[in-house]
Amino acid sequence: MLVELVTTGSELLLGEITNYNSAYLSKKLNEIGYSVIYHTTVGDNPQRMEEALKVALSRVDLVITTGGLGPTQGDMTKIIGARLMGMPLVYDDAIAESVRQWVCIHHGGAAMTENQKRQAMVPQGAVLFDNGAGTAPGVAMQQGGKTLVHLPGPPTEMRWMYENRLKPWLLQTFGSQGCIASRYIKIYDLGEAFIEEQLMDLVQGQSNPTLAMYARPGFVEVRLTARADREDQARELLAPLEQEVRRRLAGQIVTFDDDTMAHVLGNIVRQGGYSVSAAESCTGGLVGSLITDVPGASDYFRGSAGTYCNEMKEKILGVSHDTLETYTAVSAQTAAEMADGSRRLYGTDLAVSTTGIAGPGGGTPDQPVGLVYTGISGPWGTVTHRDVYHGGRAEVKRRAALRAIYYLVHYVVNHTKKA
Amino acid sequence: MLVELVTTGSELLLGEITNYNSAYLSKKLNEIGYSVIYHTTVGDNPQRMEEALKVALSRVDLVITTGGLGPTQGDMTKIIGARLMGMPLVYDDAIAESVRQWVCIHHGGAAMTENQKRQAMVPQGAVLFDNGAGTAPGVAMQQGGKTLVHLPGPPTEMRWMYENRLKPWLLQTFGSQGCIASRYIKIYDLGEAFIEEQLMDLVQGQSNPTLAMYARPGFVEVRLTARADREDQARELLAPLEQEVRRRLAGQIVTFDDDTMAHVLGNIVRQGGYSVSAAESCTGGLVGSLITDVPGASDYFRGSAGTYCNEMKEKILGVSHDTLETYTAVSAQTAAEMADGSRRLYGTDLAVSTTGIAGPGGGTPDQPVGLVYTGISGPWGTVTHRDVYHGGRAEVKRRAALRAIYYLVHYVVNHTKKA
Repeated sequence: MLVELVTTGSELLLGEITNYNSAYLSKKLNEIGYSVIYHTTVGDNPQRMEEALKVALSRVDLVITTGGLGPTQGDMTKIIGARLMGMPLVYDDAIAESVRQWVCIHHGGAAMTENQKRQAMVPQGAVLFDNGAGTAPGVAMQQGGKTLVHLPGPPTEMRWMYENRLKPWLLQTFGSQGCIASRYIKIYDLGEAFIEEQLMDLVQGQSNPTLAMYARPGFVEVRLTARADREDQARELLAPLEQEVRRRLAGQIVTFDDDTMAHVLGNIVRQGGYSVSAAESCTGGLVGSLITDVPGASDYFRGSAGTYCNEMKEKILGVSHDTLETYTAVSAQTAAEMADGSRRLYGTDLAVSTTGIAGPGGGTPDQPVGLVYTGISGPWGTVTHRDVYHGGRAEVKRRAALRAIYYLVHYVVNHTKKA
Repeated sequence: MLVELVTTGSELLLGEITNYNSAYLSKKLNEIGYSVIYHTTVGDNPQRMEEALKVALSRVDLVITTGGLGPTQGDMTKIIGARLMGMPLVYDDAIAESVRQWVCIHHGGAAMTENQKRQAMVPQGAVLFDNGAGTAPGVAMQQGGKTLVHLPGPPTEMRWMYENRLKPWLLQTFGSQGCIASRYIKIYDLGEAFIEEQLMDLVQGQSNPTLAMYARPGFVEVRLTARADREDQARELLAPLEQEVRRRLAGQIVTFDDDTMAHVLGNIVRQGGYSVSAAESCTGGLVGSLITDVPGASDYFRGSAGTYCNEMKEKILGVSHDTLETYTAVSAQTAAEMADGSRRLYGTDLAVSTTGIAGPGGGTPDQPVGLVYTGISGPWGTVTHRDVYHGGRAEVKRRAALRAIYYLVHYVVNHTKKA
């Protein structure tokens, strides 16, 4: 099954937004063995869109478009697609009713506009997919051995519809085309060159499964991929290679697949029965936000005290006035007292703190922009770390918050290993 | 000058990496007035790449490829491009020497491999671009009124070469095609269809400047674009249209260009001389993080109290035990007491709170996943809002946090308008 993804929208051609939909759909379709061989992006221009869809239908079996199903005049994908597939557009009462209900719930009982009614026009004879995350329905049309599918453009709607409607329909209509299984291992402690030395012989001379490595900001990603008829067979092919990689990286802090360092934190504090809290200055709340991105974090996380001024560091966290006067807020001493204070305030076993200069202003020769102190307080004492991060304000915050969680994991792993 | 960008690399079709190169080049080319009308992505497959390049050369004036210029066997873009343009590949001593020097500096004096020598093969008669950030040179070929350019795929190399080599060459060869200036207005209060009704006559029958609208999660973006010979002329064309849009949307809370709602918050609380704090449950710290993404937020923001369990809501924020017992933590009453408590704790003029069910677990028929209460406390009393957000845990958190900041802005704007 050869597939082409056609993304529509002039904002993509103007470089205003990045095309995340094609990467998502490619990954998902490859997982069920469908080969995506082209991506095309075209703007909200009827002639060019028709041309692009014609080219796509001529060279693959299945064309999936995203975007252009909304209620505005610029939304023309469905109209052009239906014409190419020879299916007239007709008004669908059921779709109209579901659009009406959505408008009612989400826009407080307002009546449908003429534009919203356009969304209820659907190609006669097409398979319709209802939209659990918005109003525009999806459409699948089959004609002369070719299949044309229209999905909505907003990523949350597109993803909902793929997972809940299109994927089941594809599997039912065309069956699985074999399966690709992947496993991702992220390594945080070692450089790419060292990891390559450890794993080079596994990279070379492997065809199924394969192993590849990518340097990312703050970690190295190792990807294992296997192809087979069924997923369990592909997973079976992966298992021995994964075991060997794990053996060679034993003792390193790693994360698997989509898990983040916050997931690793969740696992190890659950194991140890520890409760966790935070205290944040320069990260503003991002450490708490990342920790609570993990479902069930409320089992061990009690909160993060954001103290964005000296007064609150004293009042809420009990950082001493002397420390702030003598060492300033951006110091190892303050980071340590913030972590201790968070542990006391929340009554937790472990606490992590951040204090630094996110920029762009506020830097000095001694305390440059990007300087961040991290404090860890726990049953094995209080430790601090000093880092200088590069990049803009948001990047400094992000890297400091991610690293803070890593340091907390490292603290626990390090001490429980020794015990 | 019509342009098509052709991105090569199987990893894009597998969805392993996102296509950032096309967004970057689109934005840059549009800035000098070159119209990008298609993006195409094709894998490392000679027949399909040749086919894609043929289609591209048939429908635009300038085709720019990225990727496939490296030293490996999979790197075939230049070979196929040269064949299509009728230019034989020849060995270039100068390129060979610069590749040798790069390898020497960056790989510690190692000799060039056979593969690296392949990079010195260039199409006879082509314009060559040296690579200030890597080894693979870029190539521009002209034939029969068509231009084919090959740039390297790694983003740092591609960006260096565009800025330092390709852009000057394009401007010298084809001249500037004018300038495009854009202005973005984001509207948070009204749905896309309603806004379109307000602005429809401005969408239709406009060619320069143009107005377009896009639905985004939580807001609608209106884009005004003008084309002229020089930037100041383009800005001058935009001004009356912007004024008219502003007039029709008067009273709505909007943001301009890259500003977020947190920037608007910063502006209005600076104006009013207000201090701000937060109290967060389901958002975990994200409200504080978003507010502190704005440089200089420490002038008005004192911190966010993350209270991820009932006990801390009582202890730190002073939410009453009765309220939590009677109404639960996810209620308008708790949200109101959290906001009041944050205002008291931090001694601020304004406070915003969030409490809800981010999911995926924890939902009930009465309190579904995605239910979030927002509280606003300030000099004009305490108000609450109830919303139900869709999407995964991270998406619910993100939308709830963004909306909380919007509600805070709305509260201030609304009350200071009346005053």
